[in-house]
Amino acid sequence: MKVSVKTPATIANLGSGFDSFGLALPLYNIVSVEETVLPGSGIEINIINEKNNENSSLVNVPTDKNNIVYKAIELLYNFIGQVPNELKITIKTEIPISRGLGSSASVIVGGLIAANELLGHPADKKVLMSIATEIEGHPDNITPAFVGGMTFSSWEEDGSVIYRKLPWNDDWKLMVCIPDYELNTDISRSVLPKEVPMKDAIYNLKRTAMFVDALYTKDEELLKLALKDKLHQPYREKLVPGLVDITNNLKHTNGVIGTVLCGAGPSILIIYNGIGVSEIKEIVSNTWNYFNVKTNFLNLPIEKEGAIKIF
Amino acid sequence: MKVSVKTPATIANLGSGFDSFGLALPLYNIVSVEETVLPGSGIEINIINEKNNENSSLVNVPTDKNNIVYKAIELLYNFIGQVPNELKITIKTEIPISRGLGSSASVIVGGLIAANELLGHPADKKVLMSIATEIEGHPDNITPAFVGGMTFSSWEEDGSVIYRKLPWNDDWKLMVCIPDYELNTDISRSVLPKEVPMKDAIYNLKRTAMFVDALYTKDEELLKLALKDKLHQPYREKLVPGLVDITNNLKHTNGVIGTVLCGAGPSILIIYNGIGVSEIKEIVSNTWNYFNVKTNFLNLPIEKEGAIKIF
Repeated sequence: MKVSVKTPATIANLGSGFDSFGLALPLYNIVSVEETVLPGSGIEINIINEKNNENSSLVNVPTDKNNIVYKAIELLYNFIGQVPNELKITIKTEIPISRGLGSSASVIVGGLIAANELLGHPADKKVLMSIATEIEGHPDNITPAFVGGMTFSSWEEDGSVIYRKLPWNDDWKLMVCIPDYELNTDISRSVLPKEVPMKDAIYNLKRTAMFVDALYTKDEELLKLALKDKLHQPYREKLVPGLVDITNNLKHTNGVIGTVLCGAGPSILIIYNGIGVSEIKEIVSNTWNYFNVKTNFLNLPIEKEGAIKIF
Repeated sequence: MKVSVKTPATIANLGSGFDSFGLALPLYNIVSVEETVLPGSGIEINIINEKNNENSSLVNVPTDKNNIVYKAIELLYNFIGQVPNELKITIKTEIPISRGLGSSASVIVGGLIAANELLGHPADKKVLMSIATEIEGHPDNITPAFVGGMTFSSWEEDGSVIYRKLPWNDDWKLMVCIPDYELNTDISRSVLPKEVPMKDAIYNLKRTAMFVDALYTKDEELLKLALKDKLHQPYREKLVPGLVDITNNLKHTNGVIGTVLCGAGPSILIIYNGIGVSEIKEIVSNTWNYFNVKTNFLNLPIEKEGAIKIF
């Protein structure tokens, strides 16, 4: 039996909601898992790159037991007191990697759901989310990859993942600006300080409250304030040339609600209210051109459903 | 002409929402302001203590131009290019002072609204809130004292106060436990560090998001998590003997949703779902008794309206 699961790209953080907020995009990776007789190690991992030119560094992704999809599946097997034996994993990638679009969360979640189906559903969603978060390190991409929509989540001290889906206002549009270079998440995390000013902590905690309120009340002016951040983006600016300029240049552009880093970067998400698309694209292209960066734009709605099994 | 304004007590912070969240209680101070011919400095400030035994340190409150109500009113006069001249201020206090119940916010807001009425409404609510916050130092008590209910607020870099009123679930009851000693807010603020661990900042920002979501969805389990805090209460525990014990002793008490410090303390707020009142009181009394602290309980609903002019 072979099970295939299609899982969306995700954008985490979204300004103030560092390590907590995330939303899903209609852009997918597909992970297929099959227990089958295999030669050698008993593990075969194939990665099929659907976007050759954008995912060149996929050649560096391990295809042995160090592969994160394998590691996640191994934890699931361990959960039921087993070890994976003859396992064939096929990963079809459409989501650009190392761009802040949750490609790793997508394949971890896809692999886990597929393997769980293969094993006859020994784990519930709660367990799968905990395992996925343990592999990924934080739940902000895992949750929306799983359930779709706009979410916040928290990895609690007992290992459980607490999350809620939030109402998204469809009048708020997403423009994802993907630069033609990669940024390793570990590097982007290494520039963050271990301690932060108390006033910055307060700055962000107010804004996540604003964010949730803005979503419930569809309050655009409040969302503008809620998208601001002092905990991660200021430290990551130096890794994303042009981020500050793009943010400043878009500040007074008609229709723009906010400009935020996608996850750990380097992609940039612009949330806007439907107008000004061509002006936004021009400003981003021109600014990044100045830094010799080419931009790929994705003008997408939010993906509301999350991971699904496909046939 | 004399104008009198009745303004509620407030509880700020409420766990995770440090310097941001607040709610109003049906317990009031009344500030009356009158422009009248006076001898001497032209300023007369009278403080009438309605709760003699609880507010003994009111005798230390200045009744000259250093009084915070006078200072707030002075800023309002300055806003219209004037200075207060012959001004009689009467403050009737029912709210215990230095207990974390917003007594200062209450009289600042009351004084400002009364003086603004006296001056023919030169300032709108936005200006009054900014002045009040400038005097108080943060808006978390000012906002609910002004508008009532459950609020979050932010003092933005341009000096404006952004706030929203949040829906309160009337099934969630408030038990305010007031100890028989005072705690100066400045001291309680002085024990807070200037820098905090990034992980604690993330811990709280997730929880303020949970808090707002729990209010919109009436989700008691989520509110339990949302009330937790790592930014201020752990540092203030040493100033409030018994806080840790009361919190722990109430953790598994039927009906209890959460135990938080009121503002900077030393009062404690217990949010519960209507059951277990006598057990809660017994646990708090017994624990504080052990520390030689006597408790006054106020079992109150939330005050929904905020400051009002009285005749």
